[in-house]
Amino acid sequence: MNNNQTNSSITKQGSKWIDECHQGIRYGMEGKVLIKEKSKFQEIMVIESTRYGKGLLLDGCWMTAEKQERHYHECLVHPALCSAHEIKKVLIIGGGDGGSAKECLRYSELEHLDMVEIDEKVIQISKKYLQEIGGMAWQDNRLHVKIENGINWAANATDNSYDVVIVDGSDPNGPAEGLFNRDFYKNCKRILRKGGVFATQSESPEAFKNVHIQVIKLLREVFGNADPTYGCVPMYPSGWWSWTFASTESPRYQKPNSKRAQDIAKQCEIWSPRWQAGAFQAIPAFIDREINK
Amino acid sequence: MNNNQTNSSITKQGSKWIDECHQGIRYGMEGKVLIKEKSKFQEIMVIESTRYGKGLLLDGCWMTAEKQERHYHECLVHPALCSAHEIKKVLIIGGGDGGSAKECLRYSELEHLDMVEIDEKVIQISKKYLQEIGGMAWQDNRLHVKIENGINWAANATDNSYDVVIVDGSDPNGPAEGLFNRDFYKNCKRILRKGGVFATQSESPEAFKNVHIQVIKLLREVFGNADPTYGCVPMYPSGWWSWTFASTESPRYQKPNSKRAQDIAKQCEIWSPRWQAGAFQAIPAFIDREINK
Repeated sequence: MNNNQTNSSITKQGSKWIDECHQGIRYGMEGKVLIKEKSKFQEIMVIESTRYGKGLLLDGCWMTAEKQERHYHECLVHPALCSAHEIKKVLIIGGGDGGSAKECLRYSELEHLDMVEIDEKVIQISKKYLQEIGGMAWQDNRLHVKIENGINWAANATDNSYDVVIVDGSDPNGPAEGLFNRDFYKNCKRILRKGGVFATQSESPEAFKNVHIQVIKLLREVFGNADPTYGCVPMYPSGWWSWTFASTESPRYQKPNSKRAQDIAKQCEIWSPRWQAGAFQAIPAFIDREINK
Repeated sequence: MNNNQTNSSITKQGSKWIDECHQGIRYGMEGKVLIKEKSKFQEIMVIESTRYGKGLLLDGCWMTAEKQERHYHECLVHPALCSAHEIKKVLIIGGGDGGSAKECLRYSELEHLDMVEIDEKVIQISKKYLQEIGGMAWQDNRLHVKIENGINWAANATDNSYDVVIVDGSDPNGPAEGLFNRDFYKNCKRILRKGGVFATQSESPEAFKNVHIQVIKLLREVFGNADPTYGCVPMYPSGWWSWTFASTESPRYQKPNSKRAQDIAKQCEIWSPRWQAGAFQAIPAFIDREINK
């Protein structure tokens, strides 16, 4: 991200602090750099941290870490997959670390999962260094990885072809910029089947408040129904993060299918049907005023 | 806190990074140190940060900052003050920065507020440097500041003398240690009036998971009803924080009095009756399993 800078310094223990600095704040993990490479799109770095296992940075921004990823991936995936009418065919745009795919593939009902990631190097590096995040997803023959621009993929996909569309991209600078606009959302709506659910990470209500509110408003215009949930992803700017869900006929994302939810909940650390019911209500007052006025 | 270390380094802009380091993670703010003093109990530091205004550290741990304090104080105070039967007389133990007092004094029904803070220097420094956090609380003649040990205060207070008891202390090392045990909680229950509510900060479900769970279980044993809520306070270890509420006859803290809540909600950034209803449900799955098994 343009406003960010990564820095690092030597700790007393001889390992390094690897920090993301954002608007006068820094969040650092102690550890060592395992790999740092430039792809066509971005700088990719993997570290071995003492606290959260291996961690991934893109262009100096924390993306995920082995022992912190469930705060993010469970909250993005399960409200959508538990509430869509069917979940035979699912699309993930982005998600090259494999975490969202792993969560989707927990559902035996799922038959076909397309993952459209623009940067092949992110996938190669995640498979090699971040095994715990993708888990068995990479070996699952229901997963179909496409190295392509997700915006084009959504534009070219057939009408009514997916039960769930999940957008797991980075911030709206660089390669992910086009994942935050009306044309893209219209295509996502078009390619969703009846009873389908759309899910996207929707940035921090604090560090990226304007983008966050714009995403919710745009999705409401395009789909008719859209609502955010909030959670804590300590490594992201401000530590406070959001996911927004959308659907056409009704806000069906608010009500998990109880049979599906029961099976999945046992495997989760953060998400549960109870968590989900609460999360759609626990909206900070300053955001509630902005989006529901 | 014993495991913590503060460090600081010079940024490119010539100001400093002031960090709290905790178990291989650091959270830093760019700024400059305004004052650093030792009291009888702890080291007190105030910084001027570029992002969150003035910030307070005790023994190298972030306590609060002007533009982040509402994430903490609103979530601690309003679920209790909105739900107690009456709120004529309220006790805060700790809370020397004035933030909890400011939130309590928003209620015109409140007639008498005792704040029992062990460290006079925290109050002096907060009054001088952190005016935005205490606001007009220090001039409000309903506020009665007592420089005393809060554990002794609770032990010596008359039965049935407070409508609400709020514990706003630091981590259970150093001066706040005795605020996390059965005898203290029994006294808090004893001094609460019928229909009263007890509220405490209850640490991070991640960084201090064992303490957090123990607090909930102990409060359930002592009061009969106790439940946690969760939120994001980026400057605290793991960024993820909790508050736990307890009452005797029923979990009355779950239901805000609608007239009181309506008046207060307009003044809040995070808390609202809707937020509160959601927060008592949005419990991370791994904690829900531990406390409700």
